Amino acid sequence: MEHSFIAWAKQRAARLPKVKLGIGDDCALLGAESLDSSRSDLVVTTDSLCDGTHFILSECGAHAAGRKLMAVNLSDLASMAAKPISVFLSLCLPKENAGDIAAGVFEGVYELAEKYGVAISGGDTNVWNGPLVIHMTAIGKAPSGSSWLRSGATAGDAIVVTGRLGGSILGKHLSFDPRLELASELFALDLVSAATDISDGLGIDLLNMTVASKCGAEVWLEQVPISPEATLCSEKSGRTALEHALGDGEDFELLLAIPKDKIVAIPKEIAGIPLTRIGTYVTRTGLWSKDKSGVKQLAPRGYVHGQ
Amino acid sequence: MEHSFIAWAKQRAARLPKVKLGIGDDCALLGAESLDSSRSDLVVTTDSLCDGTHFILSECGAHAAGRKLMAVNLSDLASMAAKPISVFLSLCLPKENAGDIAAGVFEGVYELAEKYGVAISGGDTNVWNGPLVIHMTAIGKAPSGSSWLRSGATAGDAIVVTGRLGGSILGKHLSFDPRLELASELFALDLVSAATDISDGLGIDLLNMTVASKCGAEVWLEQVPISPEATLCSEKSGRTALEHALGDGEDFELLLAIPKDKIVAIPKEIAGIPLTRIGTYVTRTGLWSKDKSGVKQLAPRGYVHGQ
Repeated sequence: MEHSFIAWAKQRAARLPKVKLGIGDDCALLGAESLDSSRSDLVVTTDSLCDGTHFILSECGAHAAGRKLMAVNLSDLASMAAKPISVFLSLCLPKENAGDIAAGVFEGVYELAEKYGVAISGGDTNVWNGPLVIHMTAIGKAPSGSSWLRSGATAGDAIVVTGRLGGSILGKHLSFDPRLELASELFALDLVSAATDISDGLGIDLLNMTVASKCGAEVWLEQVPISPEATLCSEKSGRTALEHALGDGEDFELLLAIPKDKIVAIPKEIAGIPLTRIGTYVTRTGLWSKDKSGVKQLAPRGYVHGQ
Repeated sequence: MEHSFIAWAKQRAARLPKVKLGIGDDCALLGAESLDSSRSDLVVTTDSLCDGTHFILSECGAHAAGRKLMAVNLSDLASMAAKPISVFLSLCLPKENAGDIAAGVFEGVYELAEKYGVAISGGDTNVWNGPLVIHMTAIGKAPSGSSWLRSGATAGDAIVVTGRLGGSILGKHLSFDPRLELASELFALDLVSAATDISDGLGIDLLNMTVASKCGAEVWLEQVPISPEATLCSEKSGRTALEHALGDGEDFELLLAIPKDKIVAIPKEIAGIPLTRIGTYVTRTGLWSKDKSGVKQLAPRGYVHGQ
């Protein structure tokens, strides 16, 4: 099925933006014209998703798995303020229904490739004795030296998040839109000193950002934007909706640092997505929570010590 | 184990050539300086290897699996005459011994990264309920418009292979050296009109080349360089050593087209690797064998019709 799938995928991909040489040879070629060469950095990310861990194929189907793979990779590019150019899709397919699963994953990837104008330029297809594993490498570009890094936050910067957090397991982890447009508009406003996307959970990703930036963070718990799904999860889990918002992960929203002198310029929303200030980066390392009861240590998973 | 592995991998990778931003952020950054920007094309390839299909972890160990992953990707770059810059490693690890396996695979990749001066610039690490799956995307560069393609062969060109073929299952499929140096020297001599690497087997890969080049191929069976391992396999399989050489695959040698007027300039060997002319690309499409008994149709798997 591999040769016929590759021939079919090559035809489908021909309707998308193209690179110099796409699917069908030993490698793909991206010419200097797609990179703006000397004025751009190449931005590269890679992610794997496994059946049973990142999606459940028998429940969500191959299309949703492929769409998630594409969205996760594009979310990484958005968090660096990069513009996507080209993706490479690699499939390890179970023997049963390999052809249908391959086509379904491809169509899920295609949905977002078409939406965001990205080339599908190559990949690898294997059939094996295991569950579905899908990999993607996404290549984008950003003006040289201007990418948002995790390491750019300074004490005094505002902690800002996009969207509402928690409860993504109820569906958002499959259906989310990567924040490419929002990132592009924010980039044009020159407001951001550091960024990452929220994949492991606000607490963990914020900790990673403070470690990279050699500072700490004080989170205003009452300001954390809680999704309706976090509240729904809370009703069954016995944990608070706030804990879900801090710890669930796979929100794929952006976590930002905005310099002190630019805080007044933060838009309340961009393209319908709210931006919420939830605290301040501070000199004292570690994660801290602040509410009406005072300042306490905050565990990365969302647990507040001493409550 | 994922965070400690990434921290360790980042330290190990620091001894290799570097890109602008390597392991540790949402994406890696490759600056224009690593690409020679406007004078180069970016050359990208991706491959996945699965336990039980491409290697048997319990027999070969994680180091050999990682080395093979790197070698397979570098072989694709060699077959386009590209120089490797940077690789991205993605791991789906079984729960048992995940940390040791991750380190073993990384060290296998590292062995060839060090040998060929390649950066390990990022990746993804997951632990899941399945066997080991390892995935790599390799990025290289080639002078703009000069890459060897599969589609460049013309009737009259010589069919040339490097090395000796067949029987790679006895060990070469794990221990082979990608033909980067040989490709680089051949590229400097400007002798090659088309190329691919032999992964599926000489017959299939030659057929793919003729389809891409819209021509056929006549193989001089008596000239096909047969490896000692093909002969060993033949003693047990009941098939001829020639059939092993034509059909086994995973030789990771180069299959080339050399224009008619440059045939006299083909070196007998480069860097100790023999180059052997095994036939001619012809106008009549399909694969043909030629020996003392005449010209017959040749099946891609190595079977000669009418013998």
